[in-house]
Amino acid sequence: MSQPVAEWVARLEAALAAPAQADWGVLFAGECYWRDLLALTWNIITLEGREAIAAMAREQAPVIGATGFAADDAALPMTDETQGWFTFRTATARCRGHVQLRDGRAHILLTAMVELIGHEQIGGPRRPDGIEHRAEKGRRTWRDRREETARTLGNSVQPYCLIVGGGQNGLMLAARLKRLGVPALVIDALERPGDAWRSRYRSLYLHDPVFLDHFPYLPFPDHWPLYTSRDQIADWLEVYAKAMEIDFWGGTRCTAARHDEKTGVWTVTVTRGGETLTLRPNQLVLATGLSGAKHVPAIPGAGSFKGQQYHSGDHDTAAGMAGKRCIVIGSNNSAHDICVDLWEHDAEVTMLQRSPTIVVRADTMRELSKNIYYAQPGADIDLADLMFAANPFRPRTVSEKGFTDYLRQLDADFYQRLQDSGFNLWHGEDQTGFFMAYYRRAAGYYIDVGGSELIAGGQIQVRQGEVAEIVGDGLRLADGSFLPADVIVYATGYRSMSEWVGELISPEVQRKVGPCWGLGSGTAGDAGPWEGELRNMWKPTAQQGLWFQGGNLMQCRFHSLHVALQIKARMEGLPTPVYRGPAGSA
Amino acid sequence: MSQPVAEWVARLEAALAAPAQADWGVLFAGECYWRDLLALTWNIITLEGREAIAAMAREQAPVIGATGFAADDAALPMTDETQGWFTFRTATARCRGHVQLRDGRAHILLTAMVELIGHEQIGGPRRPDGIEHRAEKGRRTWRDRREETARTLGNSVQPYCLIVGGGQNGLMLAARLKRLGVPALVIDALERPGDAWRSRYRSLYLHDPVFLDHFPYLPFPDHWPLYTSRDQIADWLEVYAKAMEIDFWGGTRCTAARHDEKTGVWTVTVTRGGETLTLRPNQLVLATGLSGAKHVPAIPGAGSFKGQQYHSGDHDTAAGMAGKRCIVIGSNNSAHDICVDLWEHDAEVTMLQRSPTIVVRADTMRELSKNIYYAQPGADIDLADLMFAANPFRPRTVSEKGFTDYLRQLDADFYQRLQDSGFNLWHGEDQTGFFMAYYRRAAGYYIDVGGSELIAGGQIQVRQGEVAEIVGDGLRLADGSFLPADVIVYATGYRSMSEWVGELISPEVQRKVGPCWGLGSGTAGDAGPWEGELRNMWKPTAQQGLWFQGGNLMQCRFHSLHVALQIKARMEGLPTPVYRGPAGSA
Repeated sequence: MSQPVAEWVARLEAALAAPAQADWGVLFAGECYWRDLLALTWNIITLEGREAIAAMAREQAPVIGATGFAADDAALPMTDETQGWFTFRTATARCRGHVQLRDGRAHILLTAMVELIGHEQIGGPRRPDGIEHRAEKGRRTWRDRREETARTLGNSVQPYCLIVGGGQNGLMLAARLKRLGVPALVIDALERPGDAWRSRYRSLYLHDPVFLDHFPYLPFPDHWPLYTSRDQIADWLEVYAKAMEIDFWGGTRCTAARHDEKTGVWTVTVTRGGETLTLRPNQLVLATGLSGAKHVPAIPGAGSFKGQQYHSGDHDTAAGMAGKRCIVIGSNNSAHDICVDLWEHDAEVTMLQRSPTIVVRADTMRELSKNIYYAQPGADIDLADLMFAANPFRPRTVSEKGFTDYLRQLDADFYQRLQDSGFNLWHGEDQTGFFMAYYRRAAGYYIDVGGSELIAGGQIQVRQGEVAEIVGDGLRLADGSFLPADVIVYATGYRSMSEWVGELISPEVQRKVGPCWGLGSGTAGDAGPWEGELRNMWKPTAQQGLWFQGGNLMQCRFHSLHVALQIKARMEGLPTPVYRGPAGSA
Repeated sequence: MSQPVAEWVARLEAALAAPAQADWGVLFAGECYWRDLLALTWNIITLEGREAIAAMAREQAPVIGATGFAADDAALPMTDETQGWFTFRTATARCRGHVQLRDGRAHILLTAMVELIGHEQIGGPRRPDGIEHRAEKGRRTWRDRREETARTLGNSVQPYCLIVGGGQNGLMLAARLKRLGVPALVIDALERPGDAWRSRYRSLYLHDPVFLDHFPYLPFPDHWPLYTSRDQIADWLEVYAKAMEIDFWGGTRCTAARHDEKTGVWTVTVTRGGETLTLRPNQLVLATGLSGAKHVPAIPGAGSFKGQQYHSGDHDTAAGMAGKRCIVIGSNNSAHDICVDLWEHDAEVTMLQRSPTIVVRADTMRELSKNIYYAQPGADIDLADLMFAANPFRPRTVSEKGFTDYLRQLDADFYQRLQDSGFNLWHGEDQTGFFMAYYRRAAGYYIDVGGSELIAGGQIQVRQGEVAEIVGDGLRLADGSFLPADVIVYATGYRSMSEWVGELISPEVQRKVGPCWGLGSGTAGDAGPWEGELRNMWKPTAQQGLWFQGGNLMQCRFHSLHVALQIKARMEGLPTPVYRGPAGSA
């Protein structure tokens, strides 16, 4: 730790010891951000500006008791004269921090809870013995215990936590909870872990490189390709659930959930193998992903269509589509991937684009990602995730604008050809590109893995417009033009998590909790006010005992720790004073 | 690398460049050992003494072409003034070495092949891309390829290598071969990977701590207990086979194998699902473990016994044995574990000991193993295996005698009580204890996990002697005494791999290949001449294309690399001049 950083951290410790007397203007630069992941706030929150920081510190520091600030290992990345890592503890937890200084004052501060004191996860130096080297009557084996849990959990023994959704989100969280000794049950409507992936289209590959995608505790074997295919990740979910000893009920559908505010217990109705069962967890985690039920727009005349029509989520393979006139409605990732699949199987493909779309080239992203810390051999993934977290969303919006400008220069020829083909390209309404579109509404972009070249070359036709009507043999657009069709694929997205909350729990809870995801950027699809974090994700919601666990593999790995720590703390009855912003704020 | 080590390595390089002119007496101490794992000899061999070393070097150095000797990372363990690590290459491979000096001359030298040049395994920096970011007709997914392999391998496409036995030995080797691009098929008589473990007794735990037991490429999750139970390791085999994409045929029995010396191809008959199939691999690996078929001694009158009698391999659980008089014949690991299980289930237990038995306390071993390199967080397992390999068996015999003396002092009270109970304890005919017994005959010992305390306390009775006769209600011993019995468990071991070679291939091949395992120490069960390595294990046998892959998890992990490299080299047609000892030797 450099001298300036060490001095700054000492000053922070002093300020937190007496927050009412502290001079926050000496500690923080004029433009400043403090992003806290549970450590001070038991929330995921970014405080912007000195006033917000001072307000939080005055309220939280006395109850949280942050002490013992010390330099973290000096050999870490992101360590120089102006920035560095440190550790500290609160009354309940061990934490890490990172600070970035400007002229000796903090521009960005990250604080993050790492583990609960006295409730650490098992593993590594805290692994159990497994067996006493002593004969003992009534001794039970690992299998005896696993079988008993399988028999009792959800039946005679209630899980403390019920996780609805057994994809990567649910399984990673369950793995974390298992290590923390929290009885958790994962339920999924499909039979086997991975089935949600298996039910997607056959040609699906992850668009993120493998080094971003590792699961906690059990990294992928390193023979895995840089880009992982649908079935490989599906099989991994099965492997993972087994290796991490996750309690999983397949073929189980969650139909209703009610919370009793007095007892703090949920009553959750599920159907399993034709039976209806009631589960009574204290914590309910919705981990069905950002995408819930398929969304198909109501288009007049759709019922009269004589060909095949289906949602993109039901597309398996384009085998057998040769020569057919296929219209794919939509222009995001799935729409492109399905268009490519159709073209590869000799269909006549038209993409119907209804709104402008952000495109980034996977090859470019790949080249640019080669040098990031995640990609380095021996990278510490937990540290990498923290490094990545030390980027609050407001300054990130600015840097993403710069990054997008850079990409536009780098791939100028590509973008020109794509536009010339009639594709409605943009880079977001404020030119902040693909990453911000992901955080704001998890839609609106295509990571190009070959589709754009086919569009530029005319192998995939693109048409602009909305469908006015569907008739027996095609679609009529709002401009009056007609598209003959044998097949219509609705790549029209999914309904929101929030809608599902309304159906599963109640419209009141849906309203109370509000939308999930989005930053409140005030751009289309992400109404304000500015929140500065992803709404309701991985943090306390307005509904006691209700949590949302979602996002891409990186987020899901990183934030599953935070959800698990919050749930464990509540199970153990630790004080968890949640800071939701200055009194009177939203 | 220290100056003395660097100078020595430079002298070694010069000597290998002109072996006929080299002065081996300057390079090697009077007592010296060169253990080579494929690097110079394409064999696993320890050369003892300067003459043997000089003879090997004269024959092999000119054809192997070892060059480019350089210091290995200086921060490695086992590096000081008198010892150090280095790397070098041969015409075909990259290698590592370790030397231990005495007065500037080598006392112990280890050389080990690491990878074949131009035929490196995939993984890490050599991971495949998985997908081209380009649309392409006829493109195949990961699943398409896996399905095609499942359909064709062993049918229309012959595996280059057939591995008989799908336990840890077969699977680890298959994982290595997969990374080297060698088409390999694993067959096992049981249905699922892990079934061999599942068919053992329910209370079985690994007697080695978990940090010794990791599989290549996919370490156990670190929440695993220090001692792993039968079912956990069984499930891991399933997980591993899936994660490593191993081609596995369960329920497949190998009934005969013939080698065609002209074509170099095996004709192997297997039965699978009632069908008889013929496989034609170039390489045949027997990985059924040291223990093949169950061995039950022929005892007069056994057929007349009215109670239950079965081999230890058929023991599942002692549940239901309460009050029964149970005689366990044998006194090694399984016998003890089953006695404990019977006692825990309230049976009346007598162990019938037929010969003296080595006992070491698991708790003691555990304490002593805490500080070894394998147990350290972040230990490099491949390096740990190499460190362990830098102990040739002859000096090891001496150090094991010392270690055994140390254990006898440390646990003197325990040993005294055990002997006082009537148990026939020893520490091996030359007092070299448990490790040497393992290497010499893989039998004769008990790692005490609680049984000895029951014997010392009289809860398990011990009787000495051989069974003369079995009658309807008990056993008569050679000394005339009678043991009434409701249950007889034959913990009498397994038949040898060599016997199975005789049945599967031919008595001629059995004779030609000779015994497997054992060092040739000239002690009981391990007849000479001294071989200095485990006979026929993981190295070329007298039968072209026949390999033995076996041993405990550590050995199986480490040496599966060597088997895989040898097989890959042969598949690629690389020169593999095997050195079998000085001309005229055995």
